[in-house]
Amino acid sequence: MQSMFRYNWMVREEWLRWCEDVPLEDLLCKRTGGVGGILHTLFHIIDVEWSWIRVLQGQSDFQENFADYQSIERVRMLQSTFRQEVEEFVNSWDGSLENQLFIDHLPDGTIVTDRWGEVVRHIIAHEIHHIGQLSIFAREIEKVPVSANFIGRGLFE
Amino acid sequence: MQSMFRYNWMVREEWLRWCEDVPLEDLLCKRTGGVGGILHTLFHIIDVEWSWIRVLQGQSDFQENFADYQSIERVRMLQSTFRQEVEEFVNSWDGSLENQLFIDHLPDGTIVTDRWGEVVRHIIAHEIHHIGQLSIFAREIEKVPVSANFIGRGLFE
Repeated sequence: MQSMFRYNWMVREEWLRWCEDVPLEDLLCKRTGGVGGILHTLFHIIDVEWSWIRVLQGQSDFQENFADYQSIERVRMLQSTFRQEVEEFVNSWDGSLENQLFIDHLPDGTIVTDRWGEVVRHIIAHEIHHIGQLSIFAREIEKVPVSANFIGRGLFE
Repeated sequence: MQSMFRYNWMVREEWLRWCEDVPLEDLLCKRTGGVGGILHTLFHIIDVEWSWIRVLQGQSDFQENFADYQSIERVRMLQSTFRQEVEEFVNSWDGSLENQLFIDHLPDGTIVTDRWGEVVRHIIAHEIHHIGQLSIFAREIEKVPVSANFIGRGLFE
């Protein structure tokens, strides 16, 4: 489980570095599908990961607004604000948490029960899904995307 | 680990059903990014999952050719040919296999060593990555994509 978070963080860092060689207007340009743009996707991934880890732990969450994060530096700043909390959660994860209950109160009033193990896998899959979309956005501006390979990254060393 | 394979199979099945409401020309149309099309993506996911599980077990692999799989029925047929072998592998997975070595002979002659645990996560991430791309291809033809949510699927029941 932890190795997939580390994979996501590694790939995300490579995308943030990739962004540095792309004009800001291409990073901000509205695109079809996903959350609608390159930098917005990275912002969204960072926000959602942290938000889930907050709500799992019963802590307050807030919706960040992408309008306030229109540069790589701002998005990196958001990430470094959230990073410590996320890492502490992931590093202290152990199998006993898998079946812990998370009671979710949906906006429409219904109450849904998930397991913590489901939520962490949801977070992992959420990022990989959106990174797949980034690789299409990259091709749309004729750039080579970051590799999504899990193997070859030394994640089991 | 198994729950993420089951997640992928569930989402994949929903995409195959989704395809049934889309004209074949849209499914086959060449698109920017990924492997370049909707049905081709599903074909690729099915092929790659099986191929990795074959090579891990030291069994022969073969490269399927998408030219021979130009319909939903043909792609489903490929899936059902591979399914039993894949399910047996996934269902019999246990933690003792995590660090088993896989010696990979790359086309350029170099030899790379991966852990089985890395390879199975590579397979999982590979599918989620490409499904993210499918959801963009769906928007390009003005269709609502299949949900990628991990939670809410009863995967821990």
